[in-house]
Amino acid sequence: NPHLDSMEEDVLYHLDLGTKTHNLPAMFGDVKFVCVGGSPNRMRAFAQLMHKELGLAGDGEDLADICAGTDRYAMYRAGPVLSISHGMGIPSISIMLHELIKLLHHAKCRDVTIIRIGTSGGLGIEAGSVVITDRAVDSSFKPRFEQVVLDDVVVRSTELDRDLAEELLTCSKEIPDLPTLIGHTMCTYDFYEGQGRLDGALCSFSSEKKLDYLKRAYDAGVRNIEMESTAFAALCRLCGLRGESPRATSASSHTPALPRPGSSVCCKSQTTRRPEPHF
Amino acid sequence: NPHLDSMEEDVLYHLDLGTKTHNLPAMFGDVKFVCVGGSPNRMRAFAQLMHKELGLAGDGEDLADICAGTDRYAMYRAGPVLSISHGMGIPSISIMLHELIKLLHHAKCRDVTIIRIGTSGGLGIEAGSVVITDRAVDSSFKPRFEQVVLDDVVVRSTELDRDLAEELLTCSKEIPDLPTLIGHTMCTYDFYEGQGRLDGALCSFSSEKKLDYLKRAYDAGVRNIEMESTAFAALCRLCGLRGESPRATSASSHTPALPRPGSSVCCKSQTTRRPEPHF
Repeated sequence: NPHLDSMEEDVLYHLDLGTKTHNLPAMFGDVKFVCVGGSPNRMRAFAQLMHKELGLAGDGEDLADICAGTDRYAMYRAGPVLSISHGMGIPSISIMLHELIKLLHHAKCRDVTIIRIGTSGGLGIEAGSVVITDRAVDSSFKPRFEQVVLDDVVVRSTELDRDLAEELLTCSKEIPDLPTLIGHTMCTYDFYEGQGRLDGALCSFSSEKKLDYLKRAYDAGVRNIEMESTAFAALCRLCGLRGESPRATSASSHTPALPRPGSSVCCKSQTTRRPEPHF
Repeated sequence: NPHLDSMEEDVLYHLDLGTKTHNLPAMFGDVKFVCVGGSPNRMRAFAQLMHKELGLAGDGEDLADICAGTDRYAMYRAGPVLSISHGMGIPSISIMLHELIKLLHHAKCRDVTIIRIGTSGGLGIEAGSVVITDRAVDSSFKPRFEQVVLDDVVVRSTELDRDLAEELLTCSKEIPDLPTLIGHTMCTYDFYEGQGRLDGALCSFSSEKKLDYLKRAYDAGVRNIEMESTAFAALCRLCGLRGESPRATSASSHTPALPRPGSSVCCKSQTTRRPEPHF
């Protein structure tokens, strides 16, 4: 963004950080991995796990929230790994990514890998599987993200880093009982009507129509459904970040699955979260 | 939703409530007003203010978060008023509204008024003004919300309750120094590129193009811009809730406005939040 150079100060509003109030190169210059996920509590738990896994000194239990001055997002750091929450849905992750990308730019970070971790609904796969996204697709199964810029619609590509996906798949094989696969991830704007759930406040379709839609998605290569991947893929790609989006899933034949926080597993930068129902 | 009647249990996942685990009629049956806003901290502060204003017994300072088992949303209660956070953006507020509307249904609530309160960017109006939305419009200034249902696009109306808007405007007149007006509210999917901000990680338009767009919005009757109103209006309308969306704004000639939490004011169920920059 050419406008940034002419700004005297850049305030990252929703992160409660800024170029005048914080020494961003000193705070973040050596960051190499950024892991993002929806829930602040889970991203804290993930940072604590990273702290432990990396054998860092000090108590990983009371990591400070770097964005403590705001309740929009939470950010934790464990060595070269930043762990940030992004809330739910494309608009929420977009705001965070815009400000995160500017943060990495101001901090003069180099060769940063960004990985989105989270739960999703699995499609025709074993419950608890981890899906590593090769491409994010929209509700018509197309690998594109439609961004409204003023009142124009700009279409952006949502391909993710293929090498990184293979690398993550290789890592997953070192972990027993962690079914992992590479597949397409469908991203929707809505959790209920947009994902074929029958149990929202509104539902105008039949169980048959739902199944027909999910089967067509499966045939198009979709293996899981969530709510942020197209925006994540498009923004990371445009801004030159190496991105990946592995998601843990549940595939629990229509029945709503209850939260299973105890099932969290971790492989390098992956963790599973709440399984959600599909097929 | 006809499917709900055949369900043995309805789990409101993201609120950490359910029909089998909680006695929803006892907990919520007498709720008459629901106020929703983005930030959990501010919705707690709002509930505390309501507790005090309503002269309720007990310490309003330590109201319990009814959704404490999840960090997706926060919910507080002060007498007949529920105060709930919804995060940022249409997908995030949609999930909350689906589950809130089912909660009100299961709790057998009657005559509930729902009001969305929050910050927004003002368009050509005095900084700090409160805009009471008469209709929410999309980025083409049309009063509609496009909901993707499976892979169909369904267009829904976004008109809000006119009588409630007038009622709120009348209330605002009792409060000194609170410029308040009724106008259209534009809802976008993005905070940076979608709202004409020049300071995102990406920006492909000029300052002139931004101003041209915002002027066209003003001419179409838009007085403020935010990220949830079309989905709010459409869902409340379809589900028979009387809805309103007054937003506090700032109109600060291009300069990014800093957070001004101290500027919060309140009129009945309205509160201002962070002013954001426009014009």
